[in-house]
Amino acid sequence: MPNDKIKTAVFPGSFDPFTIGHESVVRRALDMFDKVIVGIGWNTTKSRFFPIEKSMESIRRVFEDTAGRVEVKVFKGLTVDFCKNEGSRYILRGLRTAADFEYERAIAQTNKAMYPDIETVFLLTLPQHTHVNSSIIREIIKQGGDVSLFVPKNYML
Amino acid sequence: MPNDKIKTAVFPGSFDPFTIGHESVVRRALDMFDKVIVGIGWNTTKSRFFPIEKSMESIRRVFEDTAGRVEVKVFKGLTVDFCKNEGSRYILRGLRTAADFEYERAIAQTNKAMYPDIETVFLLTLPQHTHVNSSIIREIIKQGGDVSLFVPKNYML
Amino acid sequence: MPNDKIKTAVFPGSFDPFTIGHESVVRRALDMFDKVIVGIGWNTTKSRFFPIEKSMESIRRVFEDTAGRVEVKVFKGLTVDFCKNEGSRYILRGLRTAADFEYERAIAQTNKAMYPDIETVFLLTLPQHTHVNSSIIREIIKQGGDVSLFVPKNYML
Amino acid sequence: MPNDKIKTAVFPGSFDPFTIGHESVVRRALDMFDKVIVGIGWNTTKSRFFPIEKSMESIRRVFEDTAGRVEVKVFKGLTVDFCKNEGSRYILRGLRTAADFEYERAIAQTNKAMYPDIETVFLLTLPQHTHVNSSIIREIIKQGGDVSLFVPKNYML
Amino acid sequence: MPNDKIKTAVFPGSFDPFTIGHESVVRRALDMFDKVIVGIGWNTTKSRFFPIEKSMESIRRVFEDTAGRVEVKVFKGLTVDFCKNEGSRYILRGLRTAADFEYERAIAQTNKAMYPDIETVFLLTLPQHTHVNSSIIREIIKQGGDVSLFVPKNYML
Amino acid sequence: MPNDKIKTAVFPGSFDPFTIGHESVVRRALDMFDKVIVGIGWNTTKSRFFPIEKSMESIRRVFEDTAGRVEVKVFKGLTVDFCKNEGSRYILRGLRTAADFEYERAIAQTNKAMYPDIETVFLLTLPQHTHVNSSIIREIIKQGGDVSLFVPKNYML
Repeated sequence: MPNDKIKTAVFPGSFDPFTIGHESVVRRALDMFDKVIVGIGWNTTKSRFFPIEKSMESIRRVFEDTAGRVEVKVFKGLTVDFCKNEGSRYILRGLRTAADFEYERAIAQTNKAMYPDIETVFLLTLPQHTHVNSSIIREIIKQGGDVSLFVPKNYML
Repeated sequence: MPNDKIKTAVFPGSFDPFTIGHESVVRRALDMFDKVIVGIGWNTTKSRFFPIEKSMESIRRVFEDTAGRVEVKVFKGLTVDFCKNEGSRYILRGLRTAADFEYERAIAQTNKAMYPDIETVFLLTLPQHTHVNSSIIREIIKQGGDVSLFVPKNYML
Repeated sequence: MPNDKIKTAVFPGSFDPFTIGHESVVRRALDMFDKVIVGIGWNTTKSRFFPIEKSMESIRRVFEDTAGRVEVKVFKGLTVDFCKNEGSRYILRGLRTAADFEYERAIAQTNKAMYPDIETVFLLTLPQHTHVNSSIIREIIKQGGDVSLFVPKNYML
Repeated sequence: MPNDKIKTAVFPGSFDPFTIGHESVVRRALDMFDKVIVGIGWNTTKSRFFPIEKSMESIRRVFEDTAGRVEVKVFKGLTVDFCKNEGSRYILRGLRTAADFEYERAIAQTNKAMYPDIETVFLLTLPQHTHVNSSIIREIIKQGGDVSLFVPKNYML
Repeated sequence: MPNDKIKTAVFPGSFDPFTIGHESVVRRALDMFDKVIVGIGWNTTKSRFFPIEKSMESIRRVFEDTAGRVEVKVFKGLTVDFCKNEGSRYILRGLRTAADFEYERAIAQTNKAMYPDIETVFLLTLPQHTHVNSSIIREIIKQGGDVSLFVPKNYML
Repeated sequence: MPNDKIKTAVFPGSFDPFTIGHESVVRRALDMFDKVIVGIGWNTTKSRFFPIEKSMESIRRVFEDTAGRVEVKVFKGLTVDFCKNEGSRYILRGLRTAADFEYERAIAQTNKAMYPDIETVFLLTLPQHTHVNSSIIREIIKQGGDVSLFVPKNYML
């Protein structure tokens, strides 16, 4: 008997900027979940490199072809509270490296301690995306380099 | 619009023996997937500690309460071929440690190179199960120790 | 012939805040050492989230039941100098993850290079405390979450 | 009030062979513990490279200068049972690398699950001993190389 | 003033089999070194999956286009002794993962302890080759799978 | 036929300060490369602890004995652009730990994505230098400690 609820995953992050690695994780997750909400965490104590409104708009455009199955929202507060509000029990995350893993595990286990029904689901980034990460991209931009290789096609930085 | 296919995940391993960590991963995956197939890989070149027939029977008993949503099968050959035969595009794996992660990533990326439609989905083991692994359990048994803490309730070793 | 000197260990850190993981390490160390000094390092170039006086007072209260075997002190300067002043040759640290380990090893080997008689003694955090760390706790507080699960009973934040 | 019981640590391993790294860990532990028992685990299912009797004799000779504070024993069965029999609540282990750490943590947490009073105490190997390990030494010997740099002075292989 | 000696690197391994990752490391090293010797270590105590003569012949064919700048040899004994005999002071190795790194570091530091003039030079494998390793390839073959994606074009298994 | 171009490696970093570990990597690289350019990256958004002019002068002095084969330069912008300008296709980096490795791999693969002809060449730091790193040195100085053990002889801080 199929499990008939609509399954929504939240893909939280700062996405400063959103990369081709992020895009790939969301697209692959659309096979497993009915809906994926890209949740841009608004951290009042850490300033962003790219303005949050433009990031939201840019990510929306990346997923224009998904018939509304990807939503992009900004949230304040805890990720687990955002999940509850959105009726989602799944947090989606991409894993690139062993260092990533250690950090992600701490966050995921903390989230589960605070909200036992939550499950963090990990997909791997593709091999060719392993080195792509937002902080290196910001560094390249600061040094005047071109990062179009590392963000989705037509992404507005 | 909900995604209406039946979603089946394959949970492959040697399960020599099946642990409380394995059990927890399968039970949590039942929320995301309609069916989970525990696939015991039959490796003709490596001998098992526990007989495969008894392992299959023991694991089945662990999931008697799941209304048939967990199946237990033995397979020969490649995991990706087993998935194709079962009509599954998802491989389910548990992650415990950073060392696990490196190994799991190599296997998952190799599987994807051989069968691009396959997706490996990782769940974390619970914190209290992080140290539970089959090879340590076999070692304890060889030394005459009691392992009932580390296998599912009523599991027949 | 028993080794009859009083053995004092220094447990240094910023403890911003002190967690249930820290508490557990100190309590278990009391079996090995006669005295444990919780040393709150005062770093003039990095501002604290919780005021140092209140942290000192809060930690003291946690160990009120130890008959004076746990002392809480603030120190400026190098940890090895604090150890010398306190007549301690042991630095006590808890290890949670492989990432922790790499960092702790660098610090411990640097301390030993500066003061060859010092020995850093590591205990593991308990499995259920692996994900508890001060920086995640601070982040939860900033997002308006409840952290009482992660700090000692009656700890004043 | 000093803690007046005699403190004994068990340093378990296969010591096949015992290295300068092992020697250094034992000598440094003698400051913290009244007695250290080097416990050579006798694994009936894994054959040794060096005969166990000769290893026991060789290690004893290394610590002839310690006034009887280091004992060398062979044990069968679980390490935690050996500790109980010897009246020791401390398992001593050296840590070299992050890979070591992951393995050691699993073993230590399993031991604590089976015998909650046991505490595994870790010391770091010295930087110059980080690469010294028994399996590399065996490999060098198989290839006809000289390993005297890696074992204690006068150690009989 | 250019450094005018001929620079030869030894690329040691069991190459059981040689992979596209190995090929890429050798080709990139040809820019830095005048000659690269692929040294297949003959380990009398570990049996090979592929016969050593055929492996040697297959690897030679891979580098037929390099005008003799890549040589393929079998050696017994220590890698450092092979390097001395070949007049090489450089050991070339590819790095894929953090787990690789820990192992490679131990080997390289042991080699340097035995032969201080030797230098191990590491290149990274390309991102798309990160998961390609000889033991996974052997496993796929045992399971009846096709590995042509993972070995050099025209490589004879 | 020897490869007759002059081989130049760029050793980029912030060198804030330059350590004995850095010195050792450069000296060992002089056997492989004809010239090594120590490139101090000038990051306009991150302030230095030591003034860049003094660092440049201090590093130059360290290599006064190398007959001009080590040059010290300050650069702005991307490391790959600096390499192109200097006619170098080699980036030289030292590896200390597994954590280092993960970070270095991301940077190196990003550089290769932007400039496919670049090759990052890694040497290991010596075992006794594994724990020496610039950020720990800065921390010791802030705490009033002596760091002369960790920087090259006669290095002006």
